[in-house]
Amino acid sequence: MSTTTFAAVSAVKQRSATGFDADLSAAWTIGGRPNGGYLLATIARAAIVVAEHPDVLAASAHYLRSPEPGPAEIEIDLLRTGRSASQLRGRLLQDGVPQVETLLTLGTLGNAEPYWQDGLPKPEFGPFPDEPSPRALAADVPIAIQDEIDLRFDRPLAEGPTGRGELRARLALPGDEPFDPVSLLFALDAVPPATLDVVPTGWVPTFELTGYVRARPAPGPVRVLHRAHLIGDGRVDESCHVWDSTGRLVANGTQLGGIRIG
Amino acid sequence: MSTTTFAAVSAVKQRSATGFDADLSAAWTIGGRPNGGYLLATIARAAIVVAEHPDVLAASAHYLRSPEPGPAEIEIDLLRTGRSASQLRGRLLQDGVPQVETLLTLGTLGNAEPYWQDGLPKPEFGPFPDEPSPRALAADVPIAIQDEIDLRFDRPLAEGPTGRGELRARLALPGDEPFDPVSLLFALDAVPPATLDVVPTGWVPTFELTGYVRARPAPGPVRVLHRAHLIGDGRVDESCHVWDSTGRLVANGTQLGGIRIG
Repeated sequence: MSTTTFAAVSAVKQRSATGFDADLSAAWTIGGRPNGGYLLATIARAAIVVAEHPDVLAASAHYLRSPEPGPAEIEIDLLRTGRSASQLRGRLLQDGVPQVETLLTLGTLGNAEPYWQDGLPKPEFGPFPDEPSPRALAADVPIAIQDEIDLRFDRPLAEGPTGRGELRARLALPGDEPFDPVSLLFALDAVPPATLDVVPTGWVPTFELTGYVRARPAPGPVRVLHRAHLIGDGRVDESCHVWDSTGRLVANGTQLGGIRIG
Repeated sequence: MSTTTFAAVSAVKQRSATGFDADLSAAWTIGGRPNGGYLLATIARAAIVVAEHPDVLAASAHYLRSPEPGPAEIEIDLLRTGRSASQLRGRLLQDGVPQVETLLTLGTLGNAEPYWQDGLPKPEFGPFPDEPSPRALAADVPIAIQDEIDLRFDRPLAEGPTGRGELRARLALPGDEPFDPVSLLFALDAVPPATLDVVPTGWVPTFELTGYVRARPAPGPVRVLHRAHLIGDGRVDESCHVWDSTGRLVANGTQLGGIRIG
């Protein structure tokens, strides 16, 4: 039962021309720490206030530390405003200590149909269960966020890995709040590590996350395809694709994370 | 006939604890502007001097402007040093005007075999021609860089697009200089836009480029698979995978660029 909305937990309050206050929700956490996509989205909310363009097109985050729930500060530097894009630096700090560093390119998303697309399968995956799926991390990691979002997998994670390194999910925000370009940044990080479909491990911390928003999403739940690609040397790279309820690809991203096997 | 080495053109000279001078080569340009991966690699050279870790693991660049060949300044901020990684901000400026903004995560690359890999085809593509391939951009764009690097495609670009949005190449640095983790960042941006295999257009400027380095490359030419994924709304996202001469996946990355059709 969700107690929050994404709009509320990712809201920012402007304090100065480039300074903002945020209040990181304890409900949007895994192991007591706010989700990384949620943090990136919150920074993007502040960037939009400062930029002359309305929509996030590209966002890159490097995670320095894992902040606590509670008050946080966001600082935005407008690096350049061009005709078609604004480029910004956004940082999230807690008690003055930098937690997340980001670079963002903002522009204006249009509504034209894609000119060309590669052969990535459309989200015909499913069917999904009638209820949100339980998570399958180590039992001692509290996953508060699973009481907020409605995340359903097309097969029970408890069945164990298939070895394909792929998780397919349906994701809705609390109260079926429509997605927007900013909450799509959260969608790119809402699914557990796709490595769970290869080898069960503990926490997979994200070093870097890059997201591209390709279109304004239609209302309704999104479909998420989250894939692991190479696990080795203590790290894994993952890709994530998000389609809206009309079947349109609206966002994609990549992550590099740390993973400890065995 | 190359007149340069990559080590020389990407070299930086330390001016202060966090300030560096670079000299951007007129030979490593397309349309008179330095290649974006070359710029990112040059910033990474400076980051390595400041960081306590030796290898680039992840680098994200947002391109604000397109600098001229000639002197440039690089500023590095060490954001955090942890046990396994250093995180830095790197900027390239010209006459004090910011040109490229980057975030970098550095660590130490190991030599273990990958634990698991998805089904991305190994670089069995080829055969490649006996000579470097001519580029196929608009005839009025001078491509100085093609006299420096040895880039060969497994089919002549002049044959026109296949519609697959895919370019497969063999890439060597001048004098067959061995690749290192930094020059792999260049390799991720060395191939022309994969959109050429869908629709011939002019210049495809890069807004954002993110690269992950996964292993130290063995000496010898690398194989590059560069793919376009969605063209629409004036933008395209591309992915790039790089394998070393032993067939090991050593780097991968994504780009978001601008494209004007028709």
